[in-house]
Amino acid sequence: MGEFDLIARYFSRPARHAVLGVGDDCALWQPQAGMQLAVSSDMLVEGRHFLSTVSPQRLGHKALAVNLSDLAACGARPLAFTLALSLPHVNETWLQGFSAGLFSLAQANGCELIGGDTTQGPLTICITVFGEIPPGDALLRSGAQVGDDIYVSGNLGDARLALEVFRGNLQLAPDMFEAARLRLEQPEPRVALGMALRGVANACMDISDGLVGDLGHLLKASGVGAVLTTDWVADSAAISPAVHSLPMNKRLDMALAGGDDYELLFTAAPDQAHAVQEAANACGVSVTCIGRISAGQQLQVLDRHGVAISRRFVSFDHFSN
Amino acid sequence: MGEFDLIARYFSRPARHAVLGVGDDCALWQPQAGMQLAVSSDMLVEGRHFLSTVSPQRLGHKALAVNLSDLAACGARPLAFTLALSLPHVNETWLQGFSAGLFSLAQANGCELIGGDTTQGPLTICITVFGEIPPGDALLRSGAQVGDDIYVSGNLGDARLALEVFRGNLQLAPDMFEAARLRLEQPEPRVALGMALRGVANACMDISDGLVGDLGHLLKASGVGAVLTTDWVADSAAISPAVHSLPMNKRLDMALAGGDDYELLFTAAPDQAHAVQEAANACGVSVTCIGRISAGQQLQVLDRHGVAISRRFVSFDHFSN
Repeated sequence: MGEFDLIARYFSRPARHAVLGVGDDCALWQPQAGMQLAVSSDMLVEGRHFLSTVSPQRLGHKALAVNLSDLAACGARPLAFTLALSLPHVNETWLQGFSAGLFSLAQANGCELIGGDTTQGPLTICITVFGEIPPGDALLRSGAQVGDDIYVSGNLGDARLALEVFRGNLQLAPDMFEAARLRLEQPEPRVALGMALRGVANACMDISDGLVGDLGHLLKASGVGAVLTTDWVADSAAISPAVHSLPMNKRLDMALAGGDDYELLFTAAPDQAHAVQEAANACGVSVTCIGRISAGQQLQVLDRHGVAISRRFVSFDHFSN
Repeated sequence: MGEFDLIARYFSRPARHAVLGVGDDCALWQPQAGMQLAVSSDMLVEGRHFLSTVSPQRLGHKALAVNLSDLAACGARPLAFTLALSLPHVNETWLQGFSAGLFSLAQANGCELIGGDTTQGPLTICITVFGEIPPGDALLRSGAQVGDDIYVSGNLGDARLALEVFRGNLQLAPDMFEAARLRLEQPEPRVALGMALRGVANACMDISDGLVGDLGHLLKASGVGAVLTTDWVADSAAISPAVHSLPMNKRLDMALAGGDDYELLFTAAPDQAHAVQEAANACGVSVTCIGRISAGQQLQVLDRHGVAISRRFVSFDHFSN
């Protein structure tokens, strides 16, 4: 099967909202009048962003999910995406699974494949996603205000925990491992929550490299500091049963510096606490308050007793890890 | 140097037209009211799309050029692009050259880097480019009409010729090799010509996989056939001195099935012949008439004497070559 048959069979769907979809030199799109476009691009490399043990369905899902998570972080509504795919060889079983996982998540989010590229090479997936948002409504990393509460959606640490089990560094009961593995391999982008937080949150980003490191980026962009509590790591909705089964020191590692969580990290004024909970309830996602924005530029991490933790939580960096 | 320093040092420029550029979860862009967006994505893999001998400057240029060429094929005006880059390791000399070549072409085309991704892995470059075009003005592959003249811009075959010299299959005088190599490594996207052909051409695409194969895609999309002449391969502006120096049989291979040309292939009604030449002159690019669209679905290639050539000109396919 050649390149053009491959695209026709696995990656062509009739254009729905696009003026022109897959097949010409460019896709054409008519933006809705007055809306801003939000654009993000992520590349996933085998062995770096995913293990070769992952099922193609879950990989197709994840490749789009990590991009939708960026739209969620801005509060944008997903519209469309392009897919560039480098494959070592044509494996139709793999392609069928990959495209099924991809299109399933795409359809659930009203996000249309409008174009892309297919080539031979090391397994690499690059998706660029487009969303829309009314001007001025985008949630940015730079909007945090002194006194804001800091929240995370869902729970943290499962993805890293599953990775450590794969690496042989930790052991888990089979049902807990499967649950953690699902979070690693098939993360759910918080698209609805991101949109619901427009006008409620002051700053927002998604957690991809680890909470402490990503919070550091948000603080730097906003020119503020923070006090991060960790009592929620002892027992809260932000910790899964699998992470909860670990000793406290390991829990902190997973939750504070795990990476691959794709949960939203956001700040909101204290008088928005009720609105935050309402947004979360409406989306069926838990949110947990994990600290407060402070003046200055320091990020202070407190233990359960309110004492500063001096150990470093090193975040993921593609050229340092 | 870590991932974030790398992005800050080599791939961050102040946002010019973007509402928000590199650095947040998404870039934000305010589309011009009433315009359509044209979107294209291309992935370049080392050893597949470029040789490791290419200078980083030229590679940075080419990575964007092949995407701008897709915009040119639709007649769209370039606006912005995202860059996803997988690198085996951080090489600052390489990054400096690559970003210099990339930004030089970007600036010449008013095309702004608004976001992307950087990761460790096999050298792979994925660019997604955005352009704008008034609704209804886009040049499509599907617009060719029976009786249209078929044109190519610039000249064909140099890129493939240089590749064959690299492979040791052909020899060239040094100055001819350098000229051909420049076409392979640093193609000039025909952005101005594409825009000038709005309302003049009926169908258009860019030649990336080889003339005969790409023309086949255009004919299929338009539901028409064509008679392709080859007298222009004997002697015309569409053949460089380097290709001209080859025996006729090799010239045909290079010009008709070379690939990596990034010239425009377009059709226009015979009464537009003057307008086509005016558009070409205004852009300083030669155009050559190379055949005519016919009824039916057959692509007939004629030799210099008007006799049908039966040999096949196999085009580039990433999973067959």
